[in-house]
Amino acid sequence: MKVLVVNAGSSSLKYQLFDTVSSDVLAKGICERIGIDGAITHKVPGREVYSADIKMENHTVATQILVETLCSPTLGVLKSMDEIEAVGHRIVHGGAYLKESVLVDDEVLKKLEGCLDLAPLHTAAHLMGIHGCIEAMPGKPQVLVIDTAFHSTMPPEAYTYALPKDMCEKYHIRRYGFHGTSHRYVSGEMIKILGKPAEDTKIVTCHLGNGSSISAVKGGKVIDTSMGFTPLDGFIMGSRCGAIDPAIVPFVMEKENMTPDQMNNFMNKNCGLLGVSGGLSSDCRNLGEAVEAGNADAKLAIDILCYQIKKYVGAYAAAMNGIDALVFTAGIGENRDEIRSAACKNMDYLGLKLDEEINAKTKLQGDNVCISTPDSKVKVYVIPTNEELVIARDTEMIVSGKR
Amino acid sequence: MKVLVVNAGSSSLKYQLFDTVSSDVLAKGICERIGIDGAITHKVPGREVYSADIKMENHTVATQILVETLCSPTLGVLKSMDEIEAVGHRIVHGGAYLKESVLVDDEVLKKLEGCLDLAPLHTAAHLMGIHGCIEAMPGKPQVLVIDTAFHSTMPPEAYTYALPKDMCEKYHIRRYGFHGTSHRYVSGEMIKILGKPAEDTKIVTCHLGNGSSISAVKGGKVIDTSMGFTPLDGFIMGSRCGAIDPAIVPFVMEKENMTPDQMNNFMNKNCGLLGVSGGLSSDCRNLGEAVEAGNADAKLAIDILCYQIKKYVGAYAAAMNGIDALVFTAGIGENRDEIRSAACKNMDYLGLKLDEEINAKTKLQGDNVCISTPDSKVKVYVIPTNEELVIARDTEMIVSGKR
Repeated sequence: MKVLVVNAGSSSLKYQLFDTVSSDVLAKGICERIGIDGAITHKVPGREVYSADIKMENHTVATQILVETLCSPTLGVLKSMDEIEAVGHRIVHGGAYLKESVLVDDEVLKKLEGCLDLAPLHTAAHLMGIHGCIEAMPGKPQVLVIDTAFHSTMPPEAYTYALPKDMCEKYHIRRYGFHGTSHRYVSGEMIKILGKPAEDTKIVTCHLGNGSSISAVKGGKVIDTSMGFTPLDGFIMGSRCGAIDPAIVPFVMEKENMTPDQMNNFMNKNCGLLGVSGGLSSDCRNLGEAVEAGNADAKLAIDILCYQIKKYVGAYAAAMNGIDALVFTAGIGENRDEIRSAACKNMDYLGLKLDEEINAKTKLQGDNVCISTPDSKVKVYVIPTNEELVIARDTEMIVSGKR
Repeated sequence: MKVLVVNAGSSSLKYQLFDTVSSDVLAKGICERIGIDGAITHKVPGREVYSADIKMENHTVATQILVETLCSPTLGVLKSMDEIEAVGHRIVHGGAYLKESVLVDDEVLKKLEGCLDLAPLHTAAHLMGIHGCIEAMPGKPQVLVIDTAFHSTMPPEAYTYALPKDMCEKYHIRRYGFHGTSHRYVSGEMIKILGKPAEDTKIVTCHLGNGSSISAVKGGKVIDTSMGFTPLDGFIMGSRCGAIDPAIVPFVMEKENMTPDQMNNFMNKNCGLLGVSGGLSSDCRNLGEAVEAGNADAKLAIDILCYQIKKYVGAYAAAMNGIDALVFTAGIGENRDEIRSAACKNMDYLGLKLDEEINAKTKLQGDNVCISTPDSKVKVYVIPTNEELVIARDTEMIVSGKR
């Protein structure tokens, strides 16, 4: 089945066209600056990248343009729109309403609208993307694959914040978790590698990118995850502070005379690796170069990241009474061997031993790579994430009635 | 040496008179409602408790009254004030300035005044207590023993929050940690019990009371602790939320139209066990009874507490590459066997085995009790805390020039 996977942002629309039988990506690209001016970048494996500035008033127009591009005799890979059998959408926040992948209908759209309060920017963008696809490809089945869904198996002691019960109920405040589609993909791959029944597996998955989260996956189900009510919770990220003493929030607001909105923005945009490094960079590549050059602030930023990862691995090992496997994925997880190495250092108490030589070579791989020694009790793997493939597969399953 | 240990609150003054040779408490009590009306409760071992309403305009008057009581022919234990050789004060927050126990002089008082911004209520009360003692017992040497001091050995990756570097410097924002005197006492006792060189020990100390904190003590020095910039950080407490997604703070402020001050107060007073239990109680004894009676909210509150303790133990085991010993202390730690049991359940991956029978019997003990099985790789102990004894000993050491 040919499935178009769409990831709609407020002024962008990323897409990948999958053949779900071969798992091949037939074409992928991005429509950008939607509603401002508009541009498309379109890639087909084995061909030159195509870029063009095209006016895109809204997500409907952007969708029309990307479909036209996919079907163009020169640029495309399809004879007609009919070849696309379904569309799968990446949805960031499903709130308390959407806990698994689902076919779009009026009721589902209403539930998604109910998430506007929890993740206003993302949800509004997703709704524009969905309506754009409905208008540009009328009658085509659309499926939502939700980032919070894989985390919906957490027990109450993991998802409940220690706030008044009535307030949590009123505002739907709880740990939701994010990057669920990624944690689901890499833990699924890891279960296959372990080669034992899924229900007997205990895996910690580290999705380390610009935004980062770590999950405890026991028996194939998430029992805890570091991101929470929003993607700010957890540990240090590119420009996000992660969990801090919550008393710091009103303290800084008073000192700096910030509104709640300004403070929220500050914690998401000005903190994390960027803040600790004294404004140097939110990017581990740049920070790594600065560390090499002897920059102490950059070193502290990286040290904090590695230390906090190590503590999460330890906390989740306690939560699951030990672990079988530790997985690194996403931009940092797949490519920064020095961060994997530091996070795994001095973990003999778990029987975890990294093969430093293989680890150091594991970068920009397309494949799953074992980076622990053969005698390590904990298998450590780098598994490139593939959220789009999960979205394509879920979409196929639901549209074809297999699920 | 006879040392008076003083713990001054904004309208109260707790005291204990120690004989540092025998470590005996000769008398103890509390002056309450200072500046409102005034009352004293005074206890001498083996005698009936004495209580009286006496007008106390300020901490100086309260100190005069407690000294008179200590020297009274009928109620007292001293012939005259001269027998008190020194006064030791419990200080909650030493900020970046006071990192060890110290003899009071003008410079030290200035440093303590510098902590007013970080812990306004506590520090103002301490200053009143110190000035009260100076006026009521002129010329008597006074020593400050600081709750944050034992935590000052943390490395930067543990004490640095992922906020902009310049902001942390400007406002002295960092993890300070609290209950240091308690963590110091119980880890010191545990090191003696382990009977190996202090530098080879790896201990997690759980101070669980109305306020709670957990520390990782490696080689006798704190390398991490759960409380942070303020005593709100960490895990669920009686009425404090502990660490939550920091984005929840501005979210709730906007929804409930709260000022920073109101929000801070809310997170300290209305959350934690009290909040999760739907306002039932902040006290584990009451919650325990409610659990017995089948109350699901009370059960969730206790489950969260036990789960979060377990995760801290796991995180600090990772930070220290395993642990030798786990210590429970303070009100909950010393008395709630069901919480110790749940926090230690399914920790075989560390080789930790609780002796459930001994654990269940260990309550209101005065002694250090081993509650792990003989073959447990991790020794688990209940060690009643004694912060006042540490304060008395430090005071003696400093006044007698031994330190």
